[in-house]
Amino acid sequence: MNYRERSLVKHAEWKGKIETVCRVPTDSREALSLAYTPGVAEPCLAIQADPEKSFELTRRWNTVAVITDGTAVLGLGDIGPEAGMPVMEGKCALFKAYGDVDAIPICLKTKDPDEIVRTVKLISGSFGGINLEDISAPRCFEIETRLKNELGIPVFHDDQHGTAVVMTAALINSLKLIGKDKSVIKVVINGAGAAGIAICKMLLSYGVKDIVMADKFGVICEGDRALNPTHAEISEVTNRKHLRGMLKDVMKGADVFIGVSAPNCVTKDMVASMADKATVFTCANPVPEIARADALEAGAYIVGTGSSEYPNQINNVLVFPGLFRGALDVRAKTVNREMMIAAAEGIASCVSDAELNADRILPLAYDKNAHSRVAQAVADAAKRTGVAKLF
Amino acid sequence: MNYRERSLVKHAEWKGKIETVCRVPTDSREALSLAYTPGVAEPCLAIQADPEKSFELTRRWNTVAVITDGTAVLGLGDIGPEAGMPVMEGKCALFKAYGDVDAIPICLKTKDPDEIVRTVKLISGSFGGINLEDISAPRCFEIETRLKNELGIPVFHDDQHGTAVVMTAALINSLKLIGKDKSVIKVVINGAGAAGIAICKMLLSYGVKDIVMADKFGVICEGDRALNPTHAEISEVTNRKHLRGMLKDVMKGADVFIGVSAPNCVTKDMVASMADKATVFTCANPVPEIARADALEAGAYIVGTGSSEYPNQINNVLVFPGLFRGALDVRAKTVNREMMIAAAEGIASCVSDAELNADRILPLAYDKNAHSRVAQAVADAAKRTGVAKLF
Repeated sequence: MNYRERSLVKHAEWKGKIETVCRVPTDSREALSLAYTPGVAEPCLAIQADPEKSFELTRRWNTVAVITDGTAVLGLGDIGPEAGMPVMEGKCALFKAYGDVDAIPICLKTKDPDEIVRTVKLISGSFGGINLEDISAPRCFEIETRLKNELGIPVFHDDQHGTAVVMTAALINSLKLIGKDKSVIKVVINGAGAAGIAICKMLLSYGVKDIVMADKFGVICEGDRALNPTHAEISEVTNRKHLRGMLKDVMKGADVFIGVSAPNCVTKDMVASMADKATVFTCANPVPEIARADALEAGAYIVGTGSSEYPNQINNVLVFPGLFRGALDVRAKTVNREMMIAAAEGIASCVSDAELNADRILPLAYDKNAHSRVAQAVADAAKRTGVAKLF
Repeated sequence: MNYRERSLVKHAEWKGKIETVCRVPTDSREALSLAYTPGVAEPCLAIQADPEKSFELTRRWNTVAVITDGTAVLGLGDIGPEAGMPVMEGKCALFKAYGDVDAIPICLKTKDPDEIVRTVKLISGSFGGINLEDISAPRCFEIETRLKNELGIPVFHDDQHGTAVVMTAALINSLKLIGKDKSVIKVVINGAGAAGIAICKMLLSYGVKDIVMADKFGVICEGDRALNPTHAEISEVTNRKHLRGMLKDVMKGADVFIGVSAPNCVTKDMVASMADKATVFTCANPVPEIARADALEAGAYIVGTGSSEYPNQINNVLVFPGLFRGALDVRAKTVNREMMIAAAEGIASCVSDAELNADRILPLAYDKNAHSRVAQAVADAAKRTGVAKLF
């Protein structure tokens, strides 16, 4: 049996990858009087007087809602809210295992951005953070932006920013290994959906200057084509040479290729046309833009993929548990760019100079030390940028 | 320190009465591939093909959302959603401790019935049942009715039905002890809010014939006064002698007094005017309708209260964990009257004939055997009435 078949069997055995447990005594009259009535009236009144106290007197301080509408689950597309549950539950299991965060899966039976925003706002008083997951573009941009503006707790769309953070970490260590500088490299990103746009913005914030974005219609160029609002915005800060054409045209001489696009859209010739010591990150899922072996054969020096089958898995599992751990620990009001860059640097720092090589640019997803470093880096960045309520 | 002061200290120490734990291995590439990507795609697709499979392949089968809007928390009134959290979390802790149910507190930042119904519907795909809690009347009636009609999972407003079930259990054993028959006793219920109305309807279903309801404005009588729709409905099936007047007038000769009303509204004279072997249940919280000692002195034979300080605590903690355990075990589509009566009989059956006396009409709230009996009785009733999807 392959992983998918075995996973189905396991899920039927597990009957749930998370569960709720009770942390307090309940086996006597005294215990009930303290944890429940009549004693519980007092913490209720304390929170009524100061709602911030809900972070001290309940589990809210450690609790994240993992929210989806089921419209962009894995590579499966719009499979609906119930069908998204195994992924959300898996995410919650990893939140706990790697970040000691109490996460709750909530799959919404609506695709309407207004309803999603309203629902998340209405339930947000019970949570310390909101992880948006597998919500399709462009709705995910509006939903995240509105929630970030309207809630005073961390809101993080993992498909955008989790991917961008781990990709930035992979780039940091690749550049270190090949000895190129972020300010002069040429980066091509193929795929201009939620992940591609987020990666582009993050790399620009990090200090990469020359990025060209493309999608199946070709290179995105300022003033060109009928650009949607997201693409029009990104076209103003990418491709400053106003290159036109298709992906193959802009891959010539590129130092880094980042694919968050479609299976088999990159050929060996295209990789061969890249600069010396080319870095190729192929994250299309489950079939990548080009097979790892082909990319290496065509001359790529570093290849990273989305798959756990090969070295250099670019996996956002490295991001969300530690990022929320750090944000919750200092009760951050938001997740800002500095916290995300700190997370990327924290991940990159887990591979020592001695360990670093073309098949080892990232820590393993289940390396607990990596998650701790992310948490610490994020907490420090939140404090430094003034968004931490606790010091 | 009293319970409330000590409870505040404890809550600050606990920092949460529940938490989420991970039930699956996550410490290897293999483990991640099964619990998360790529394996998880397969259970997702299985649920997409048949959403009912979400009860087999995720924790949904065992998960209940505890929903409040914070408008009627304990005796504290409208304290808002965040301030309701300690109660909801306590409830979730008891759900686990006594029913092995995974319950999640969700406090809604709205009081609008339409928004509450819509929000619960939108999140319902992640839950196996909905426990409504501390939502003020009359909104709670509409909210529960609409959700029961629109969702295919158990919906239970604990303040109404939990109270009604445990009160019925108390009555069953009281009648056994004093040797009176349910079809001939005279019952007076004071308090015509959510709990009072639910108790009245439940006792009528159970077979009590003569019930008179009163509130602070006096006795509720068909065709009398400006009755609200709920009172008008109940007036057609209670007080068939069309008595008028105040509470004290109808307590004369009554066999059973049930108070879910206000502090100190019953005098010793009123209790003394009741029938021989009078039963007095005083559940106003935290100060009862009449002090237990006064009721006994005035001639009451059995006294039950809402307080854990005295014998015969009438506590809906005896109901909800087992009721949902039973409903979830057979995947009941709803919670019907037969299941609630079965729960009451299950609770009553926990006190043996040998144990039964005026100070022991109910099992203790933390008696695990009682919760198991409720679960079994409810599951059986669900099967018997054709609302169980599993047999």
